[in-house]
Amino acid sequence: MHRVGVVGATGAVGRELLGVLEKREFPCEAPLLFGSKGGQTVESGKWGPLDVSPFSVEGVSGLDVVFLAASGDFAKEYADKIAAVVKTCVVDNSSALRLRDDVPLVVPEVNGHLCKGAKLIANPNCTTAIAIMALAPIFAAFGLRKVVVSTYQAASGAGAAGMRELRDGITPALQNIKDDGCFEGASTAEVFAHPLPFNVVPHIDKFQANGYTKEEMKVTWETKKILGFDPKGDDGPKVSCTAVRIPTLRAHSEAITVETEKPCPAAACLDVLSDAPGLTVKDDPGDNLYPMPLTATGAFDVEVGRVRQNIVFGENGLDLFVCGDQLLRGAALNAVLIAEKALS
Amino acid sequence: MHRVGVVGATGAVGRELLGVLEKREFPCEAPLLFGSKGGQTVESGKWGPLDVSPFSVEGVSGLDVVFLAASGDFAKEYADKIAAVVKTCVVDNSSALRLRDDVPLVVPEVNGHLCKGAKLIANPNCTTAIAIMALAPIFAAFGLRKVVVSTYQAASGAGAAGMRELRDGITPALQNIKDDGCFEGASTAEVFAHPLPFNVVPHIDKFQANGYTKEEMKVTWETKKILGFDPKGDDGPKVSCTAVRIPTLRAHSEAITVETEKPCPAAACLDVLSDAPGLTVKDDPGDNLYPMPLTATGAFDVEVGRVRQNIVFGENGLDLFVCGDQLLRGAALNAVLIAEKALS
Repeated sequence: MHRVGVVGATGAVGRELLGVLEKREFPCEAPLLFGSKGGQTVESGKWGPLDVSPFSVEGVSGLDVVFLAASGDFAKEYADKIAAVVKTCVVDNSSALRLRDDVPLVVPEVNGHLCKGAKLIANPNCTTAIAIMALAPIFAAFGLRKVVVSTYQAASGAGAAGMRELRDGITPALQNIKDDGCFEGASTAEVFAHPLPFNVVPHIDKFQANGYTKEEMKVTWETKKILGFDPKGDDGPKVSCTAVRIPTLRAHSEAITVETEKPCPAAACLDVLSDAPGLTVKDDPGDNLYPMPLTATGAFDVEVGRVRQNIVFGENGLDLFVCGDQLLRGAALNAVLIAEKALS
Repeated sequence: MHRVGVVGATGAVGRELLGVLEKREFPCEAPLLFGSKGGQTVESGKWGPLDVSPFSVEGVSGLDVVFLAASGDFAKEYADKIAAVVKTCVVDNSSALRLRDDVPLVVPEVNGHLCKGAKLIANPNCTTAIAIMALAPIFAAFGLRKVVVSTYQAASGAGAAGMRELRDGITPALQNIKDDGCFEGASTAEVFAHPLPFNVVPHIDKFQANGYTKEEMKVTWETKKILGFDPKGDDGPKVSCTAVRIPTLRAHSEAITVETEKPCPAAACLDVLSDAPGLTVKDDPGDNLYPMPLTATGAFDVEVGRVRQNIVFGENGLDLFVCGDQLLRGAALNAVLIAEKALS
């Protein structure tokens, strides 16, 4: 039985990690939990209540795998130190190390071979991890020239506090809206830049000099890196993103338009996607079947559908719509799958 | 003083029409209101309570302008008959006549000259009308080769019943969601294909043989027609859309990526957009300023922002984000502006 640690155990991703370890029947003893403040207890199904200890490098020394569900600053300070004392690997969920040349950025179904022997492995940005489940098989089958992504991102991307702000804000927001649907009173926001209930906020993470947000650039850089290209280089597909927060709780949706290198009939693309691991095709317009948060939330697989020949790019163009659980494929599930590959 | 009729006066668009006529100080007597069932009363600010009569062609005979905020089937049956008995024009909000060669499809700031002398004028699809406020000035300044649109559409697109279903469904939905943000119990849907609270539904209007929905094809066809091209022809820009319903009430947002014919520096594009009528530039990332339903709802102007050089198309590429009130620019305001042009 492996010995596992979770740093940042009381956050949204930390809690999901426990659930995924249990559901995947990950062969480990009760995980050791660490948080910024110790003294808390986290309820787990399989292992009962688990105590949360204050983090120290000594405390994780000798464990097989340590999952970091903490900040980028924490990862910058401690990831290498922890990697030096674990038996197999550290899996970091932050963005801090993702573009480091010596750190593989892994979605196991796509580039899981990079896990073998790596002491430090980065878990991608949630939006990227969800999109790549469909993009990677299309890239393998048809090649990719251009990728344009528009996201519909859930509150969980801002953690438990983000989900709470949306849930707690909905009822007062309803009261602040007139019969005609216009906003009458003000709502408040602390986690998000603006109130999220009944609103849309096209702003996730910090703005960059080129006008894109960092969240958007993560999709560009990380998609290229996972597909094997220099994240900031000119080779490989050109990828752009508009990242938008909407009032949903924990599944991200994404409208994706691609131009492929080879012609890609929509039917052939659907065959490719049907064979891809970690992906469930939901594409039956006649039965109102397509990806939605309602069905993708809590599921391990990413849903893909609305696959059609794109009008703009013609026979080399595809539109698709994906939806995946932000806390699972976008974080905890992908991290556990990385650990499984690293240990295999 | 002109004499005006509103058919479909008790619906969401019908009610907004009265408000817009008043706010624009449209020079008319108290409008005559018609609905499928008569006997109702609609409250108006300026003219007090107005009775709703059952519709008849005789009832609108001799009026200057008749606004149709009814179904496509109604327009197919009656629009020409009404056009034959009005003094100036009929403005139809349905999709039934929009692609007819002899019916101008008008957004007054873009192709308002087509109103003069036309007896029957079509009001565009809401998504198209909102997007074109930004696309038309870009087209005029830089030319347009490719347009890729992803929408974030509000419940009001399904009328008053759609807004009601979202509002009434939110509180039960909250109770059907577990602490971890997963759906626990089922919500219900009648207006929408699936429950909208905390969900995303990538399905608006009927699916077509090419895999796009009719809503998506309306954006393709109507954008081309308003810009002066054959809606279904090969000339002009190639336009594709993914139309998605989200849990907001009455403003549509749209993420738009374009490839232009001439190079289009983002700064030059912002200058062009700043000069365009009916559009308010909201683009100051440092101040968290960008288009949002929270600010665009109830406003006459469409908001545009997040303007940046697109990574995929380079110096000929732009990303932008627009947000506009679906019931105003997307319907009632545009219809009243058409009438003003026709009467001028």
